[in-house]
Amino acid sequence: MVQDRQSVTQIPKRDENFSEWYTQVALRAELADYAPIKGFMAIRPYGYAIWEAIQAWLDRRFKETGHMNAYFPLLLPESLLQKEAEHVEGFAPQVAWVTQGGDEQLSERLAVRPTSEAIILPMYAKWIQSYRDLPVLILQWNSVVRWEKSTRLFLRTAEFLWHEGHTAHRTAEEADQECRLILGIYKELLEDVLAIPVLVGIKPPRERFAGADNTYTLEALMPDGQAIQAGTSHYLGQKFAKAFNVKFLDSDNQEKYIWSTSWAVSTRLIGTLIMAHGDDHGLMLPPKIAPYQIVIVPILGKDDGKVLPAAKDLAKALGTRFRVKLDDRDAYTPGWKFNEWELRGVPVRLEIGPRDVTGRKAVLVRRTGGAKETVSLDGIADRIGRVLDEIQAEMFRRSKTYLDSHMAEASSLDDLVRKMEQVKGFVRVGWCETQSCEDTIREKTGASPRAIPLDTKATGACPVCGKSARVFVYYARAY
Amino acid sequence: MVQDRQSVTQIPKRDENFSEWYTQVALRAELADYAPIKGFMAIRPYGYAIWEAIQAWLDRRFKETGHMNAYFPLLLPESLLQKEAEHVEGFAPQVAWVTQGGDEQLSERLAVRPTSEAIILPMYAKWIQSYRDLPVLILQWNSVVRWEKSTRLFLRTAEFLWHEGHTAHRTAEEADQECRLILGIYKELLEDVLAIPVLVGIKPPRERFAGADNTYTLEALMPDGQAIQAGTSHYLGQKFAKAFNVKFLDSDNQEKYIWSTSWAVSTRLIGTLIMAHGDDHGLMLPPKIAPYQIVIVPILGKDDGKVLPAAKDLAKALGTRFRVKLDDRDAYTPGWKFNEWELRGVPVRLEIGPRDVTGRKAVLVRRTGGAKETVSLDGIADRIGRVLDEIQAEMFRRSKTYLDSHMAEASSLDDLVRKMEQVKGFVRVGWCETQSCEDTIREKTGASPRAIPLDTKATGACPVCGKSARVFVYYARAY
Repeated sequence: MVQDRQSVTQIPKRDENFSEWYTQVALRAELADYAPIKGFMAIRPYGYAIWEAIQAWLDRRFKETGHMNAYFPLLLPESLLQKEAEHVEGFAPQVAWVTQGGDEQLSERLAVRPTSEAIILPMYAKWIQSYRDLPVLILQWNSVVRWEKSTRLFLRTAEFLWHEGHTAHRTAEEADQECRLILGIYKELLEDVLAIPVLVGIKPPRERFAGADNTYTLEALMPDGQAIQAGTSHYLGQKFAKAFNVKFLDSDNQEKYIWSTSWAVSTRLIGTLIMAHGDDHGLMLPPKIAPYQIVIVPILGKDDGKVLPAAKDLAKALGTRFRVKLDDRDAYTPGWKFNEWELRGVPVRLEIGPRDVTGRKAVLVRRTGGAKETVSLDGIADRIGRVLDEIQAEMFRRSKTYLDSHMAEASSLDDLVRKMEQVKGFVRVGWCETQSCEDTIREKTGASPRAIPLDTKATGACPVCGKSARVFVYYARAY
Repeated sequence: MVQDRQSVTQIPKRDENFSEWYTQVALRAELADYAPIKGFMAIRPYGYAIWEAIQAWLDRRFKETGHMNAYFPLLLPESLLQKEAEHVEGFAPQVAWVTQGGDEQLSERLAVRPTSEAIILPMYAKWIQSYRDLPVLILQWNSVVRWEKSTRLFLRTAEFLWHEGHTAHRTAEEADQECRLILGIYKELLEDVLAIPVLVGIKPPRERFAGADNTYTLEALMPDGQAIQAGTSHYLGQKFAKAFNVKFLDSDNQEKYIWSTSWAVSTRLIGTLIMAHGDDHGLMLPPKIAPYQIVIVPILGKDDGKVLPAAKDLAKALGTRFRVKLDDRDAYTPGWKFNEWELRGVPVRLEIGPRDVTGRKAVLVRRTGGAKETVSLDGIADRIGRVLDEIQAEMFRRSKTYLDSHMAEASSLDDLVRKMEQVKGFVRVGWCETQSCEDTIREKTGASPRAIPLDTKATGACPVCGKSARVFVYYARAY
């Protein structure tokens, strides 16, 4: 069947057709596939393994910081969704509605959850009585549906996987601290694990989560110059507490509304990962998240009898410390396998042939490029440990260099328009915080405000109205 | 708020009102709660932690046996669901239908998945070309919806969590072996981890999964004498392969349909766990699955200053090896905490007071009963390790004794009716394998056929028609 598989060379060049390159990498690396229902996708085992690695890392960090997993219903009665006015306005146009159960026409429509505030807060109203019951630090891993007809694998689908955290606190300060804690965990995930540098900040009002008082965001920059939102953490204030009547008796014997937060990252991160690191050969995965960190390809020469057992021994020895794939399929040539595993982004390839077995060595090739190197089988695990660390660091450094070289500041509207074109990245301007000035910038640049940096004092003037800037804003074109 | 919490003594006696006892234990132990949508429940962190422990154990076993996780769409177009006639007939009455997406009326109804064969097999048709692509060993962890208006927490809900395995094979034999492999893993989970002995066997035709050629089942017996299905593994033959046109080119260059299986256990297991081991004090969790294996309750006397630090040191030391909860809340008395953690089923309680600190000891109490024992803090981890093993073994032994003493054989219809009443458990009879004889037994006994034991040669006659028995069947009343 070798001849039926399309070869790697048929992937478009990344910089010639970024969009088609992206889709082909996602499909050919077997991360995901289109499902027989418009707007939906199936996540294949190799793609899902990346998600499991993300989940495992986050689950550990969330539990270390006192959070617990739980599960809430998939369906939300319309009357509950309507309780918070801004919230329903934001989500209703995207809702898939269940109207029939078995043979019965339902008296009330049920929303397939687009997000779960409206089903979780009513439970919190039952569970929280006293300040002693706070904080409540719960999240759930599930899928949500937001009606879309177009599909871009991982980036825009009618259903996606995520976690959604929902916490309840005694004070506003504590809720805000929770948002910042989560933002920090997400930043660590993006930068230290996925090797993707991010800008962090808050969203301007119009870009906030529907119903939130404040939305913290992480923004990454893709090689086509477009920004992508990589995660959000919402400070909901008391809006949802009031809408769902979630109160507690404080130590001063007063009844008070709780302060709540919600936060999420989704399988969109896998799309971000593809774009951030991929090249003309396909996917490139950071070692910390790669389902296979090492692939071993035996090169069977005349001395076949020794190579395969040696490759198996090597796989077994390395398997105690790394995630290893031994590709011992006999229907494919070594060259075909090299292409295949480059396409699938495995960080390190080890080739082992008859002469290597005799000489107790193997050939090591890095997915990030560079010369082939010959390594001794003695002490190979330590050597590979160092190589994987180097690859992880190298991938972050490359992405960081790219981000840093695609950032600029603008001092006037003309300057902003020009820099947006030249820089193809994030351009920072001052802002007076009036909506009309933001609207003007959006219109003139085709860009949107991505983030207001935290703890940065603005200087200069708003480029539209000329009044004093109250904050800085990063603008970019975006996914 | 202590006085607002209902005390443990308000739980009904288990043997006086089993149903109400069950519900109160599930609610008061904070495993789950009713959601504000009919038929649905929320799984609370403590209940979800049990599910996570089940998941972690199964995930390891599935991966060891070559299976991989993936994810398929939540919604299934009606036309796909209808492709396998028996399948749609079995599931259609239970389907929740999405008919609207945003503002748009959909041209085709979409089923919220009741099970996913109809969306997964079409993907396999795309992914499988050659015998080299087989076997495909994939499962997904998700939730399914089957329309119900009544709720019995964990046991009968409109939505439940499960995994569903879907595998594709080159031969019938291999598919059947897969079913038996999974049955073995489930049996190990039930007996070795959850401490619940099970009968295994196959279902008579009418009790099979809709569309299956064969259904393997595990059946447990609850203290009220009713059986509960604890897991199933379905041999689907080529029915679904033909319905969804899943073919491969074999090594003999012939195109052939694949042979498929599907299999599942669900959060119903948590309900089974509550019933199997609980008593008048509440939940009783086997150490292998308990979210907390040990609870430490400090007894603060006059010498307060030393007790809490000592309890914290103990929690930290034991925490490296066990799952430990230190209950250092100051708003509750030790006695209240004892009741609380008994209700929540923690296997071992350690009490530590001022004199214990001085004497370097603690008091150990087993949830399974027996005398309090004083244990030295030196070597306490090893001692507790042995105690947890003993509790695990004791819980299985108790359940096994109960099961063994509630099994019988019957030789005639009268005998079967009588034994069903006397034994309140499983009664075995011969069966000629005609449906009408099964129907007669159902009608006369109010029981249903639970399992045909594997690899057991039947003797004697069918108690209804008197013809030679072809198989044995275990009958029981059931959930």
